[in-house]
Amino acid sequence: MHRAGDVRIETVPDPVLQAPTDAIIRVTRACICGSDLWPYNDLPPTPGGQQMGHEAIGIVEAVGADVHRVTRGQLVVMPFAFSDGTCQFCDEGLHTSCTHGGFFGNGGGIGGAQAEALRIPQADGTLFALPVGPDDALMPSLLTLSDVMGTGHHAAVCAKVGPGKRVAVVGDGAVGLCGVIAAKRLGAEQIIILGRHKDRLALAQRFGATDVVTERGEAAVQHLRELTGGFGAHSVLECVGSEAAMRTAALIARPGGAVGRVGVPHYDGTPAGQQTFFGNVSVAGGPAPVRATIAELLPDVMEGRIEPGLVFDRTVDLDGVPDGYRAMNAREALKVMVRP
Amino acid sequence: MHRAGDVRIETVPDPVLQAPTDAIIRVTRACICGSDLWPYNDLPPTPGGQQMGHEAIGIVEAVGADVHRVTRGQLVVMPFAFSDGTCQFCDEGLHTSCTHGGFFGNGGGIGGAQAEALRIPQADGTLFALPVGPDDALMPSLLTLSDVMGTGHHAAVCAKVGPGKRVAVVGDGAVGLCGVIAAKRLGAEQIIILGRHKDRLALAQRFGATDVVTERGEAAVQHLRELTGGFGAHSVLECVGSEAAMRTAALIARPGGAVGRVGVPHYDGTPAGQQTFFGNVSVAGGPAPVRATIAELLPDVMEGRIEPGLVFDRTVDLDGVPDGYRAMNAREALKVMVRP
Repeated sequence: MHRAGDVRIETVPDPVLQAPTDAIIRVTRACICGSDLWPYNDLPPTPGGQQMGHEAIGIVEAVGADVHRVTRGQLVVMPFAFSDGTCQFCDEGLHTSCTHGGFFGNGGGIGGAQAEALRIPQADGTLFALPVGPDDALMPSLLTLSDVMGTGHHAAVCAKVGPGKRVAVVGDGAVGLCGVIAAKRLGAEQIIILGRHKDRLALAQRFGATDVVTERGEAAVQHLRELTGGFGAHSVLECVGSEAAMRTAALIARPGGAVGRVGVPHYDGTPAGQQTFFGNVSVAGGPAPVRATIAELLPDVMEGRIEPGLVFDRTVDLDGVPDGYRAMNAREALKVMVRP
Repeated sequence: MHRAGDVRIETVPDPVLQAPTDAIIRVTRACICGSDLWPYNDLPPTPGGQQMGHEAIGIVEAVGADVHRVTRGQLVVMPFAFSDGTCQFCDEGLHTSCTHGGFFGNGGGIGGAQAEALRIPQADGTLFALPVGPDDALMPSLLTLSDVMGTGHHAAVCAKVGPGKRVAVVGDGAVGLCGVIAAKRLGAEQIIILGRHKDRLALAQRFGATDVVTERGEAAVQHLRELTGGFGAHSVLECVGSEAAMRTAALIARPGGAVGRVGVPHYDGTPAGQQTFFGNVSVAGGPAPVRATIAELLPDVMEGRIEPGLVFDRTVDLDGVPDGYRAMNAREALKVMVRP
């Protein structure tokens, strides 16, 4: 991506092992993330461009001398952040704060996954081997363990979803839809999706949403309160990242409730700080430590209990990536899979 | 209080039972709260004045026909909020969100505790009988169960203080000092107090603070990181309520850490929403449901394991209340007790 709206497929040098803890993967599936649309709308001109993409499944092609767990030929899923798996934060399950970690497809020296191949720093700590072949029918759902399903799960955990809870999900993008899956999986009694796209709301209902709120702002708050007996939702999953969405999330939480936010915030002051205070509403969340949750979610994917791969409604090859961005940004496509 | 800076002692009609669930107490001890200093600095001219005070111990003088638990002659402590004790929020321990609740000394039809007597709505749910006489030496510490000790405890709970945790307390006012007591009581390994008042910091150390940070802003953040091995505190108690204090609190939290805020927020957007997001730092807190925690804290007060009453460094009679406000506002006094 050279600047906002300018995505090009270019031939660049093959990635090589730079550190003994690196691996190289050949990407078999990647995708475009809702968070990629932020730079697609606001990236300043960037000399040399920024390699994009942070979600992938691939086959390990090479490993450095200090890589002992990951082996050549393995099929692996790659979390959107790399991590050593051994620092104090990884030990606590917060791999996104790894002291040797970082993010893919975000500029700097780290490549992007919307590519044929990619260098993986801290390969032993980062990659997770998958117990299937590269053309398994479950591939779309497995790919969501890279980010979007793990992120929806993180939102639900931070929002303290549990049995009997009334849950609201702000945003009907792929993360919000995975948030619905996560809320149902964790035992929510009521799941209210807030969004405006008919087909996405239908998918949310297929995933377990019990109610739909299509209003915005104050009208959304009123409608949601009506649906929840007057007090709001115990758990609110903020899956957008805009100030308006976060304000709505804060205002629809029940006193004593919790907001789990996973939309990358495009605000500095978290809105409605007075209301969350007087209602004792907690606000938690951040980049999901998906490396920690792959193991928890994988059995449900393998055994078909959850189908997050249904969020992909378009598949492109590498040359189709620029149009994939356009389509997602225009809300023509929900989430675009890339098959290099 | 008639307007900012204008506190007068006036003779008003005796409170009377208005609802069958009311009680009347004769106030034996009250005090001035740090939060009373906000209106002392910014209350617009208020016709008729606003009755002030929300912390008291008193003797029950009369009870309504539907009051069955509280009886005449009992010595009781009064939480700063009244609550019915039976609604869904009280059942969950969130008495400050009681559906029949409200706050004392805050304007409206509810009186203040800096007075000879006070009407207590929802008396059965609100008042907590004390197992001592009205002149017991523990009276100052018992009075803190009205608000300040319960509020410090709430900050610590919302900040997830526990054994082995590194804890930072932002603010060396009475709530911050009670936050130190609470952090120690809950097993914190390290307790760092951020403040600038020598005598208060000394009291913090007596209460269990292990380190002191007197800088502000970026310098405070740097010092605190040095004291915590580079990453910040697991648990941060925000006990001020200003935007600057909340920003500092957010920035000194360790990745994956928690801020418990109990300072009444004088901001709308909670500062540093980007940093708390990327560090997965949770922000929780609000008005402390002290009615729920009196029972937990009382044994420690009764048996002398905690001495929160040491925060009182001045005692006045009713006529001394205006000067008490002045002294607290000038930081001459830490916390002023009132003996009507």
